[in-house]
Amino acid sequence: MTLCISLSARPSNNGTRFHNHLYEALGLNWIYKAFAPTDLAQAIAGVRGLGIRGCAISMPYKEDVIALVDRMDASASAIDSVNTIVNDAGVLTAYNTDYSAIAQLIEHAGLDPAASVLLRGSGGMAKATAAAFRDAGFARVTIVARNEERGRALADLYGFAWRPEVGEATADVLVNVTPIGMSGGPDEHALAFTAEAIAAASVVFDVVALPAETPLISAGRAAGKTVITGAEVATLQALEQFVLYTGIRPSAEQVREAEEFMRAGTA
Amino acid sequence: MTLCISLSARPSNNGTRFHNHLYEALGLNWIYKAFAPTDLAQAIAGVRGLGIRGCAISMPYKEDVIALVDRMDASASAIDSVNTIVNDAGVLTAYNTDYSAIAQLIEHAGLDPAASVLLRGSGGMAKATAAAFRDAGFARVTIVARNEERGRALADLYGFAWRPEVGEATADVLVNVTPIGMSGGPDEHALAFTAEAIAAASVVFDVVALPAETPLISAGRAAGKTVITGAEVATLQALEQFVLYTGIRPSAEQVREAEEFMRAGTA
Repeated sequence: MTLCISLSARPSNNGTRFHNHLYEALGLNWIYKAFAPTDLAQAIAGVRGLGIRGCAISMPYKEDVIALVDRMDASASAIDSVNTIVNDAGVLTAYNTDYSAIAQLIEHAGLDPAASVLLRGSGGMAKATAAAFRDAGFARVTIVARNEERGRALADLYGFAWRPEVGEATADVLVNVTPIGMSGGPDEHALAFTAEAIAAASVVFDVVALPAETPLISAGRAAGKTVITGAEVATLQALEQFVLYTGIRPSAEQVREAEEFMRAGTA
Repeated sequence: MTLCISLSARPSNNGTRFHNHLYEALGLNWIYKAFAPTDLAQAIAGVRGLGIRGCAISMPYKEDVIALVDRMDASASAIDSVNTIVNDAGVLTAYNTDYSAIAQLIEHAGLDPAASVLLRGSGGMAKATAAAFRDAGFARVTIVARNEERGRALADLYGFAWRPEVGEATADVLVNVTPIGMSGGPDEHALAFTAEAIAAASVVFDVVALPAETPLISAGRAAGKTVITGAEVATLQALEQFVLYTGIRPSAEQVREAEEFMRAGTA
């Protein structure tokens, strides 16, 4: 039996449900388990010593783990952040499937690199998202972040503009990478962008995964915009992990069922 | 969810089936998984770093692991051999439940410490068995082992006698701690003691667990002797591990069912 795990200060059931459901659907003798490690370096030693095949990395370990792996895939080195480790006979390679999932969604939606982008947020996921837009050829990107130091740093990193508030700004593509609209958060019912910005945009992208229908996504749908949801990011990044671990790409139907099973656990 | 594991060069399903069956019977959100570690020190680091609650240690790690734990329980230090590690918030305590299981079986069978004992074998399990007899007050013990160096060393350790072959020796208690009679082994159908020794004995004890009815046990039963089987040792040591890990002592009926489930997996 092969084991894959996740390491997180606050483990959720999502990965566990998604991966285990696919293992079962595909008849793999694999198991997935979530851990809250007491010591990151010892936990990674355990990944090697126990021959654990794959390891998802969540907050707050995404940067600290860089020093503990053997190789950085471009998806992780592009943003100095790791969310996935693959163990090939003791050689640990780090990936970032959030970055690659966002890059894929940008490509699949057929977004025009000449489009203007307002990207709200300045955390680790905002960095992954900004890098994916930059690497897809987007240059007209404005980072919106109240924290000037972090906002400017992120903008400067990719040659983007910065502004502290959305204000009267509009753009072709609106991207929310803050907790605004997140279930259970203080801004659960808030809109990450103004009604005017939504009306002026052609694409609305919300990286918040829970709920799948955030106020921003609902507003974007109601206005007939192209929408990309955080739920799509979450599923796609988990699927990319699954493919990296097992070498198997499940069918769209199998992924949809695993996704539904995952969501049922957090409803 | 709490994880317990085993570390063995050749993992078997026995512990996995026994422990997982009891977890389910008792409604515990625990899981047990067998590993073949690639590196023992890193695997033990993983036990700490991942907060793995319990860890069974099998061949060939029972002695090497001593340097990696924090505390040695008397059951392990008595024989310099570890088969169980309990992790209390990062503090690892080593036990030997083979030793304690054998000690309990000697006590429960009401064996008289004044009895003479022929103990055949000179490996790690023979050491645990010899120590249990010594600690129960037995002094008239003869170690039977063809390998003179190891046989004499074991005998000397506990102040026992040594002889290379059973020959014409007899005793009140016969104990087999060699692979003779073991399923699938080269001496599967052989008797570990002579018919004369069996006839002269009152107790026949075979540490071989598979099959439960070895030729020695069958011969002992047929001759109306008190028998102690290796299957009893295997179940009792696994039960002691379960109690050390969970703090819960299952009912005799629950243990019997877990034992049957374990056996069904090796049949």
